Amino acid sequence: MVDLGFAKVDVDRETRQGLPEVVYGSGKTATQIIEIVHTLLRHNSGPVLATRVDDETARSVLAAVPDGAYDNAARLLVWRPAPSTGFGVVVAAAGTADLPVAREAAAVAAAVGIDVTTVTDIGVAGLHRLLAEQDRLRSADTVIVIAGMEGALASAIGGLVACPVVAVPTSTGYGAALAGITALLAMHASCAAGITVVNIDSGFGAAMAAFRLARIAGRRT
Amino acid sequence: MVDLGFAKVDVDRETRQGLPEVVYGSGKTATQIIEIVHTLLRHNSGPVLATRVDDETARSVLAAVPDGAYDNAARLLVWRPAPSTGFGVVVAAAGTADLPVAREAAAVAAAVGIDVTTVTDIGVAGLHRLLAEQDRLRSADTVIVIAGMEGALASAIGGLVACPVVAVPTSTGYGAALAGITALLAMHASCAAGITVVNIDSGFGAAMAAFRLARIAGRRT
Amino acid sequence: MVDLGFAKVDVDRETRQGLPEVVYGSGKTATQIIEIVHTLLRHNSGPVLATRVDDETARSVLAAVPDGAYDNAARLLVWRPAPSTGFGVVVAAAGTADLPVAREAAAVAAAVGIDVTTVTDIGVAGLHRLLAEQDRLRSADTVIVIAGMEGALASAIGGLVACPVVAVPTSTGYGAALAGITALLAMHASCAAGITVVNIDSGFGAAMAAFRLARIAGRRT
Amino acid sequence: MVDLGFAKVDVDRETRQGLPEVVYGSGKTATQIIEIVHTLLRHNSGPVLATRVDDETARSVLAAVPDGAYDNAARLLVWRPAPSTGFGVVVAAAGTADLPVAREAAAVAAAVGIDVTTVTDIGVAGLHRLLAEQDRLRSADTVIVIAGMEGALASAIGGLVACPVVAVPTSTGYGAALAGITALLAMHASCAAGITVVNIDSGFGAAMAAFRLARIAGRRT
Amino acid sequence: MVDLGFAKVDVDRETRQGLPEVVYGSGKTATQIIEIVHTLLRHNSGPVLATRVDDETARSVLAAVPDGAYDNAARLLVWRPAPSTGFGVVVAAAGTADLPVAREAAAVAAAVGIDVTTVTDIGVAGLHRLLAEQDRLRSADTVIVIAGMEGALASAIGGLVACPVVAVPTSTGYGAALAGITALLAMHASCAAGITVVNIDSGFGAAMAAFRLARIAGRRT
Amino acid sequence: MVDLGFAKVDVDRETRQGLPEVVYGSGKTATQIIEIVHTLLRHNSGPVLATRVDDETARSVLAAVPDGAYDNAARLLVWRPAPSTGFGVVVAAAGTADLPVAREAAAVAAAVGIDVTTVTDIGVAGLHRLLAEQDRLRSADTVIVIAGMEGALASAIGGLVACPVVAVPTSTGYGAALAGITALLAMHASCAAGITVVNIDSGFGAAMAAFRLARIAGRRT
Amino acid sequence: MVDLGFAKVDVDRETRQGLPEVVYGSGKTATQIIEIVHTLLRHNSGPVLATRVDDETARSVLAAVPDGAYDNAARLLVWRPAPSTGFGVVVAAAGTADLPVAREAAAVAAAVGIDVTTVTDIGVAGLHRLLAEQDRLRSADTVIVIAGMEGALASAIGGLVACPVVAVPTSTGYGAALAGITALLAMHASCAAGITVVNIDSGFGAAMAAFRLARIAGRRT
Amino acid sequence: MVDLGFAKVDVDRETRQGLPEVVYGSGKTATQIIEIVHTLLRHNSGPVLATRVDDETARSVLAAVPDGAYDNAARLLVWRPAPSTGFGVVVAAAGTADLPVAREAAAVAAAVGIDVTTVTDIGVAGLHRLLAEQDRLRSADTVIVIAGMEGALASAIGGLVACPVVAVPTSTGYGAALAGITALLAMHASCAAGITVVNIDSGFGAAMAAFRLARIAGRRT
Repeated sequence: MVDLGFAKVDVDRETRQGLPEVVYGSGKTATQIIEIVHTLLRHNSGPVLATRVDDETARSVLAAVPDGAYDNAARLLVWRPAPSTGFGVVVAAAGTADLPVAREAAAVAAAVGIDVTTVTDIGVAGLHRLLAEQDRLRSADTVIVIAGMEGALASAIGGLVACPVVAVPTSTGYGAALAGITALLAMHASCAAGITVVNIDSGFGAAMAAFRLARIAGRRT
Repeated sequence: MVDLGFAKVDVDRETRQGLPEVVYGSGKTATQIIEIVHTLLRHNSGPVLATRVDDETARSVLAAVPDGAYDNAARLLVWRPAPSTGFGVVVAAAGTADLPVAREAAAVAAAVGIDVTTVTDIGVAGLHRLLAEQDRLRSADTVIVIAGMEGALASAIGGLVACPVVAVPTSTGYGAALAGITALLAMHASCAAGITVVNIDSGFGAAMAAFRLARIAGRRT
Repeated sequence: MVDLGFAKVDVDRETRQGLPEVVYGSGKTATQIIEIVHTLLRHNSGPVLATRVDDETARSVLAAVPDGAYDNAARLLVWRPAPSTGFGVVVAAAGTADLPVAREAAAVAAAVGIDVTTVTDIGVAGLHRLLAEQDRLRSADTVIVIAGMEGALASAIGGLVACPVVAVPTSTGYGAALAGITALLAMHASCAAGITVVNIDSGFGAAMAAFRLARIAGRRT
Repeated sequence: MVDLGFAKVDVDRETRQGLPEVVYGSGKTATQIIEIVHTLLRHNSGPVLATRVDDETARSVLAAVPDGAYDNAARLLVWRPAPSTGFGVVVAAAGTADLPVAREAAAVAAAVGIDVTTVTDIGVAGLHRLLAEQDRLRSADTVIVIAGMEGALASAIGGLVACPVVAVPTSTGYGAALAGITALLAMHASCAAGITVVNIDSGFGAAMAAFRLARIAGRRT
Repeated sequence: MVDLGFAKVDVDRETRQGLPEVVYGSGKTATQIIEIVHTLLRHNSGPVLATRVDDETARSVLAAVPDGAYDNAARLLVWRPAPSTGFGVVVAAAGTADLPVAREAAAVAAAVGIDVTTVTDIGVAGLHRLLAEQDRLRSADTVIVIAGMEGALASAIGGLVACPVVAVPTSTGYGAALAGITALLAMHASCAAGITVVNIDSGFGAAMAAFRLARIAGRRT
Repeated sequence: MVDLGFAKVDVDRETRQGLPEVVYGSGKTATQIIEIVHTLLRHNSGPVLATRVDDETARSVLAAVPDGAYDNAARLLVWRPAPSTGFGVVVAAAGTADLPVAREAAAVAAAVGIDVTTVTDIGVAGLHRLLAEQDRLRSADTVIVIAGMEGALASAIGGLVACPVVAVPTSTGYGAALAGITALLAMHASCAAGITVVNIDSGFGAAMAAFRLARIAGRRT
Repeated sequence: MVDLGFAKVDVDRETRQGLPEVVYGSGKTATQIIEIVHTLLRHNSGPVLATRVDDETARSVLAAVPDGAYDNAARLLVWRPAPSTGFGVVVAAAGTADLPVAREAAAVAAAVGIDVTTVTDIGVAGLHRLLAEQDRLRSADTVIVIAGMEGALASAIGGLVACPVVAVPTSTGYGAALAGITALLAMHASCAAGITVVNIDSGFGAAMAAFRLARIAGRRT
Repeated sequence: MVDLGFAKVDVDRETRQGLPEVVYGSGKTATQIIEIVHTLLRHNSGPVLATRVDDETARSVLAAVPDGAYDNAARLLVWRPAPSTGFGVVVAAAGTADLPVAREAAAVAAAVGIDVTTVTDIGVAGLHRLLAEQDRLRSADTVIVIAGMEGALASAIGGLVACPVVAVPTSTGYGAALAGITALLAMHASCAAGITVVNIDSGFGAAMAAFRLARIAGRRT
């Protein structure tokens, strides 16, 4: 462990646990992110990510820590992205309002070596659009479903595919959508067996769940 | 108005407003129901209903007030059911747990002159079953959707048909289903335009909404 | 279906389902709206709407897509409004704070061919004002009730008229009004039979519900 | 103060504060109620009440403490009821399901010297029934409104009369009624100025609020 | 009734119901307030109030409608304040954070003819300060209790005085205070009999409740 | 599809989707379960399960449908259990009160071919007990965490292992535990990356999630 | 650790952590409690407690494990109670409905060596009764406040004493009391500095908090 | 008591109750704080604190009231800090996002004479980091646990140490974290016996709870 004063950096986690190193950027200054990322890059050899980083901060960090890449839509900084594991995930977003979360999920998953395909505008109010993507969904090793007002999509996809389905409720919608709480509860009350759920708007959480799946699938190969 | 002491019976409502006479049976004794039904039958000429009546009470009431019929599954007593208006409603229930509410909706609707078809087991976790009923749903003048853990069904059907869709959340499910609150909120947050919602478990409310639709459709013919 | 990259445009919905084409403007750039509206106008022949569009965006869109009209109070853009269907809706708003939602309901309804009359300031705390509008309410084919702190209005009107009543809870009021949740729940708990409810502040949803009613009433004529 | 071991009996409250002595019977044994009532009767001269007492307990208590009366519908025991103060309260109940709470309010109020008139079945879904009672409501010194699913009644009556209005939400209704929480919130969000609210099902609380009003009105005479 | 287009002004309410004329200023332009106030002053003879009016709007309105007064702390405009009715109210605020609401209550009450005394900093965490005000509280015809995090004050005062107690929960406090919801619920769950409650932060509502009390006390004199 | 009147039996799901056939027993009669199970056994060749079946019903069903086994602690009936897939799951229960849910998870998982080890009494209030199980947890292909008042266990285990973690909140605990809602929310708010959550008390849901994982891991081998 | 099959018994906790051994009796059979208590008595030398044990179970356990004592009001079994530590706690209960929780707190505290005094009927609606106990409260080393509808008591006592105050919200009351949630939130929103709160109805939790205090006070002597 | 017009200053509290004098700065002007602090410094001899004071206000106050110190991270002003009592508290923060609250707790505690050690980044998702601090935690007289999304830390530390544990839920996290409500409820539902909880983000409240503990521990020495 390296103690930077404002944070302890867990430089052994990669070895110990096998998960990638991630800095939660929200609320941290560029200087703090730079220092943590430097420490992580020096002590490990795998991918290093910083999530929820805005444009301006990203520019400052990239200037100070070379060889990184910034995905503006996903608000993600990545150094040393992992090579492909061959594990294929489809990120399925119900509507355009769910896209920012879908992009975070897709970018984080790609950075840790997952092959990602994104499908959008397939809410259950347009079943023919959803069914048109059936083959693509069935070919996935895992489906990440991103849906807000249309929390229903997780249930519908859960009934179409037999692979793991990770649902991400989003805070889109208004009124009775209760900033994502309704979608979160609805996804849990769903009738499709074996769907699992992560926190509201947590594209990152879903990508990490997929990474855990990819890892175990890989271990068994 | 007739004052029975324990209740004022609104014997002019049929004339004044055109809605059928309904006694909410829950919490009333057989004697009270008998007295109210007698009064309504005497002062009006249309259908008279008593909802949420259990078996035993129903038997006592039928013994005292002739020419009534009891629908045990719907817990409904009916006298002088209305002739068919030709208005066709499909009652679509997501799962078998939603059937009691579906039956109340169907029986009340039938009693006020609506032609009812019931379709069950078409939750969105089994899209092929739902799509198999597409033509039947599209032929309806109105669809009443009954769904609990699978509140999503309202949204899916709303995207399949262009007629009015009345959604009834049910209190089935457990945990995150919150006794119907989750389905109620989810139906409101739905992305299919123009769906409307009634109270949890209120098959009666949906049937009366359908009756109001039938009446206006009839008026315009 | 036309894929614009950032959205799939469902150009067959008009034919397939008979509902008008609507772009949900909130969160979309002028450029995105322009592209979607162009596509819809080209592939269909009916009305095209864009809702929740602010002043500035509206001006940019109208400059690029000719023959549209902007209703500032309703924040609505309309191209090719439908001719009157003769179906008459009264939009009844409890108080002045409920007017923005009432205007969205009225403008959307008018754009899809409904004849709209708006009545305001008829909250149940002033019953004589409500009763003064009784005849107008009774002449409607459908009443859309817009009410916030005064969710009670839906119940009162539901008891006055026999036609369909669609209630829209609004997020007006403060404290115990809980940003519309109280009105939404209260409208569902109402004692007037057959009232239906749409999402908080969804004047658009109520108008689309009315359109579905108008369509079925028309089909049966 | 008299210490009975299981409770301290505040025998000076009558003198000190002028409010009647009340034993909350729920959860107390007949023996406990008997002992407390005996103590109160011995140390004071005004009315003594025991609320929420069931039939069987009431019989035991009355056998042991003479000169009491039991109101079965209100579940209330009274000794030494107060003479009339001439203060007139109308207890207005929205529907028959609200009657038990209305009866508690009426019986407690009568026991402390208030002249009570009860009006029922005047929910806002039947405005003509409500308006038919207008004169009676306007003649009251205070109106206690008892309403569950129809929390709206408080607002409507608040707009009809200028005297104090005390609203009691009831736990009747189902689903979105949330066991009285919806009515409680709706009554607070009401648009009629100057309505006040007591706890769910608390007919007792409303009667005591009326007693406080009667007392101050009397003091000023 | 006078129809101004954007609002119906109920110029007969004073006569009909005896309550003062009040314009809810929040969300209205200076021009709208001016027009409504003019209409009310012309058609009635009693006090006219506009609540929740900010500084700048107030200045514009006062410039256009002569003889009004603005209370900046209470955000209240008043024309033709009522003469004293001799009815005495104590406004008791738990802490300094509750003062803005206390001031609205006090200013509105004064404008409609009530004699107001304000007492502050008497939260139950400092009982000696509360008890030091006992005599003043007991001399009141009615006590209005303003309390946020300290919702407890209503209960404590309810036990000290026998006159009506109107409690106003405030949105002060943080975390578990839930923007006033906790205080509102706690005041209802209180053990002091006969306390009544108005909406969160509604100093206006409490003052109007006091006015209703004053009116009935006066009627009986 | 086979239509039994009271239910449609989806006899093609096994082929189509690869998931086992499961009858949700709660609320169904022995006769209904018998008929559905018969149909499923006849049309498919894989495992058939009936969940949430009580003792008495189980005896009736087993008498009518031979070769089934009943797990009383898990309330589960199984016919034709799947052979081992070699996929290893550890079911980790925080406390003894969480055991019924753990048993449902374990029994369902075993029936569909998963190798299950159960570990109990490892709540985070006893970290040494948790750490003593570290090796066993790390050897798992997936960990199912069952925890009620101690929702924290999911987060702690998520930090110990790199494999998929499926968390099941339970309705144990009282007061602030809110019948499982607190644990459900806490598990979602967890700081361990990549944990996923299923519905309250849904041991079945977690087992099916594990089955989906096992299936994809197997597919990739 | 001793593994009994149905539970792991942590026989080293006393040594390791210094807290007494406690069996949570709710949901355990007499046989299970007997086995765990036997194990704890054999491996440790300090007090052994079993909480939330009903009468009948207690009799069976006492018959099998000698030298225990059962406190029926507290539903507590105790073996080898600790000698007095001289640490004095006052358990202050707002009303009689809060007594069962107060008794659990008092009995558990006594069993672990704390000197307990119980004070009841001192809710803030009767300040003179509360103030009469001021000296007793001030003499305490710690005050445990038990209050339901009257959550305010914690705040009032927190302002009277300078010693630690542990508040226990209770599930007494009805309606807006929300089964203890209102009291729990209100105690947290309290304005008296330094009050701490435990779970609803957890007399046990408060006693254990007091034990932790007593221990540290003792350590420092 | 000194009445400043806008506030009553309780200059006797120090003597009467032994707690330090604290001004809640939020919402007060520099001028108001200056006046209150002056009064307190003049009438007492112990420490004087002002909490939740921003930079700019702090500068103005310090310019007017000499000999004070401002802790910018804790937003705290202190005059006449107390000498060390020798009572040692460890402030344990789960993550960096919890640091502002931890700093308020630490600074307030230090100002009233408590010896404070702060430990950070020990959330339960990294048990080895937590266990590395075990000795430090066990040496404390009291542990203050600051945790948001990771409410679990309180439970884990409660199982490691036998001294008092005061938990502070923080409003960090998003979605299901519900601005601290989830952590607050989870801390109450915890399975570690004797943990107590203060309001969300209330570092101040925890420090004052620790002061009460230090005082009683000191009294007994």
